[in-house]
Amino acid sequence: MRKTFLSIALLAFGSTGMTYAQTDYQADSIFIRQIFNSALSDGRSYEWLRDLTQKVGPRLSGSEGAAKAVEYTKDAMVNAKFDNVFLQNVMVPHWVRGAKEKAYIVSGKQKINVPIAALGGSVATPKGGTKAKVIEVKNFQELRALGTEKVKGKIVFFNRPMDPTKLNTFEAYGGAVDQRGSGPSEAAKLGAVGAIVRSMTTRLDDIPHTGSMRYASGAPIIPAAAISTNGAELLSKMVKENPDTEIFFEQFSETLSDAPSHNVIGELKGSQNPAQYIVVGGHLDSWDFAQGAHDDGSGCVQAMEAVRLLKDVGYKPKNTLRAVMYMNEENGLKGGVAYADSAKSKNEKHIAAIESDRGGFTPLGFGVVGTAAQKAKIAAWSKLFAAYGIHEIGPGGGGADIGPLAQQGTVLLGLIPDSQRYFDYHHASNDTFDKVSKRELELGGAAMAAMMYLVDKYGVE
Amino acid sequence: MRKTFLSIALLAFGSTGMTYAQTDYQADSIFIRQIFNSALSDGRSYEWLRDLTQKVGPRLSGSEGAAKAVEYTKDAMVNAKFDNVFLQNVMVPHWVRGAKEKAYIVSGKQKINVPIAALGGSVATPKGGTKAKVIEVKNFQELRALGTEKVKGKIVFFNRPMDPTKLNTFEAYGGAVDQRGSGPSEAAKLGAVGAIVRSMTTRLDDIPHTGSMRYASGAPIIPAAAISTNGAELLSKMVKENPDTEIFFEQFSETLSDAPSHNVIGELKGSQNPAQYIVVGGHLDSWDFAQGAHDDGSGCVQAMEAVRLLKDVGYKPKNTLRAVMYMNEENGLKGGVAYADSAKSKNEKHIAAIESDRGGFTPLGFGVVGTAAQKAKIAAWSKLFAAYGIHEIGPGGGGADIGPLAQQGTVLLGLIPDSQRYFDYHHASNDTFDKVSKRELELGGAAMAAMMYLVDKYGVE
Repeated sequence: MRKTFLSIALLAFGSTGMTYAQTDYQADSIFIRQIFNSALSDGRSYEWLRDLTQKVGPRLSGSEGAAKAVEYTKDAMVNAKFDNVFLQNVMVPHWVRGAKEKAYIVSGKQKINVPIAALGGSVATPKGGTKAKVIEVKNFQELRALGTEKVKGKIVFFNRPMDPTKLNTFEAYGGAVDQRGSGPSEAAKLGAVGAIVRSMTTRLDDIPHTGSMRYASGAPIIPAAAISTNGAELLSKMVKENPDTEIFFEQFSETLSDAPSHNVIGELKGSQNPAQYIVVGGHLDSWDFAQGAHDDGSGCVQAMEAVRLLKDVGYKPKNTLRAVMYMNEENGLKGGVAYADSAKSKNEKHIAAIESDRGGFTPLGFGVVGTAAQKAKIAAWSKLFAAYGIHEIGPGGGGADIGPLAQQGTVLLGLIPDSQRYFDYHHASNDTFDKVSKRELELGGAAMAAMMYLVDKYGVE
Repeated sequence: MRKTFLSIALLAFGSTGMTYAQTDYQADSIFIRQIFNSALSDGRSYEWLRDLTQKVGPRLSGSEGAAKAVEYTKDAMVNAKFDNVFLQNVMVPHWVRGAKEKAYIVSGKQKINVPIAALGGSVATPKGGTKAKVIEVKNFQELRALGTEKVKGKIVFFNRPMDPTKLNTFEAYGGAVDQRGSGPSEAAKLGAVGAIVRSMTTRLDDIPHTGSMRYASGAPIIPAAAISTNGAELLSKMVKENPDTEIFFEQFSETLSDAPSHNVIGELKGSQNPAQYIVVGGHLDSWDFAQGAHDDGSGCVQAMEAVRLLKDVGYKPKNTLRAVMYMNEENGLKGGVAYADSAKSKNEKHIAAIESDRGGFTPLGFGVVGTAAQKAKIAAWSKLFAAYGIHEIGPGGGGADIGPLAQQGTVLLGLIPDSQRYFDYHHASNDTFDKVSKRELELGGAAMAAMMYLVDKYGVE
């Protein structure tokens, strides 16, 4: 099966005539086995994650939790004896939820409470809440067809579910998340007084999933919240039964002044090219009511672990290896941008950047962004990963935080774990430590270490 | 490159000259997509599993729960409008745990309670419990080297952990489970009065994992229990600190007379060869204190779902398709043996048998037991499964319950899901419904349906 897959990988990327010698394969497979053995028998990532989720807890940009997370991960890398650990200043948006939201559906004499959560970036409702008739739509086309006449004064309810038939749940998310990101302003343009968005999950449950939204310039500013999927099903049913159904919601969120924060960076110095960098990373911030165990505590501890593993199995890198905890992926990406800006201004050549921001699940592949030749070179390493169940190295996204490095030609690699459970927990209060499997988390960190090793040893050109 | 691919594929599986036409590929991939879409958007398996784990609950052979499970799955298949649903009589062992076990470690003035669970098949301790000094060993060689002199009158503590570096956790289990299955009698042969076995899991926690043990003929019968991994770590530490450390345990288990029970079978009649069979199955029994969500409620509902999916997408099978709920896999395999015996006595030709008994996790492959030609034919279907992340179709185990069919030359196929979390829950009280992901479960059922379809359409010769 390994041989078969290698051929498929080369087919997918086109034959380039590049070879990967059998002698290298033998040495590399032994070394990579060491990495995995160390991760699985003596790993640190799980205990780091326990602390980050349970001692530090929620860590939305600008919050006290985020500041604690900066200190915690800095200390962790100092204690793991990285060569150099430092903070990088970054100003971040500072949005706060305030008191817990309230919401209920009113239909005739019925009044039923439903779980909601203000969307990240949303304003509060007017004092005393917002109550209005509900217009349910599945997409913007349907919304616009209704026009101002039918939307004005109403609360627009966006209720298009994530498509459960997509094997890759990120694809299903991508097909639904416009409702959350742009729905509120699209509704406001037609005179809506509020927006309620079905939570972005394929599960049916009572947990609202938040996430960022953006106000379009020029559109009226209206409050917006996510409703749990069970709440959405109920609301839809009640609206169908009685078109005069109303929803009330009250939320207290606000955007404060930008706050100072940090990316956290730990490194192993390169022995040959110390001013050339290979980075692994995750984002340190989470939503405010979430432990952020999968999103993205897992990516952070896996990144620290990838560098630690290479150090502790005795690897001496040619290039400088960095673990980067990016701040503010959730509602601004200021950390990722600041990191790339700093790299540019300091002329730091970044060979490759690897990110884990798809949860701490069993790794199945890497998505690679680069030239055809770079992709082919990386794909030729596939057979080294097949022993670990990692069969899908191919085109695909890197990760939001490393995206800004693309401008300097850095190869971007995104760890691709099994995606089936990710949106059960994404941006929600149930994204807790107990949802992470120690072994699955460890396999991801080891896979990142192995990829970092190969990039360091062979380069990407 | 395509030529290279084909030759490598044939090399890997043995060249047989068999081909799988491109036109078939297109039709089959469309049909298999239908199966997966139906499973993911309109599946039944998750709600069946909810009932089987939460309404029926634990279902050890001979128990009331097992009898309820027989009724439940029979009704489920009748309600799903299978062509024919029937029970197959089977006599099963009837072991009962009795009251909850007690155990504590005594070292000097310290007395610390530890969680244990009687091993399946073990006798009770004498009334009032067993208390003795502890001898820790890692394997039988070490035990035998100690000899009667050092073992007599002691409680032998088997404490070799599952190897965490094995990627396939079943391999790690296979490398440790001799301690549970044969350890008690090995200890008894040297005069031990009891055996305590480290739970078969790579996790460190407070949950004992039971499982069956067998008394060797001629060896004295001594009581045996599993201790939680945290308990094992503590016991080991205390024994090292004080060789006079004792453990007390009391358990109330007993083996009653064999009890009548059933396999449950539902079928879709074949249109061309109704007397030829393709079966999918799981085992209906679980341990007594476990909901048996992954082991093996998942396999049962996936088997029912595989047949239902084919029926509900409108497939008319050539051969008769059966979903079989085998009774008594955990402590006897009487159901699997009875099924094969019945097939033989009725001259029912079984083309292939597919089992799911490795948990309801994301499917990654199938293990195939058959001739080289049969394996090559099945491997040629691999590319149909790749779109669903199923890349590992190769040699490997089928499943315990279908094993007895091998005698009639039936091809055995075992669904291979991701194994990382399986032993977190195996044979333990935390093997509960909430540990199963709806999507992961559904993918497994769809994969089994797809495999059943291909076997039905193309045969295995």
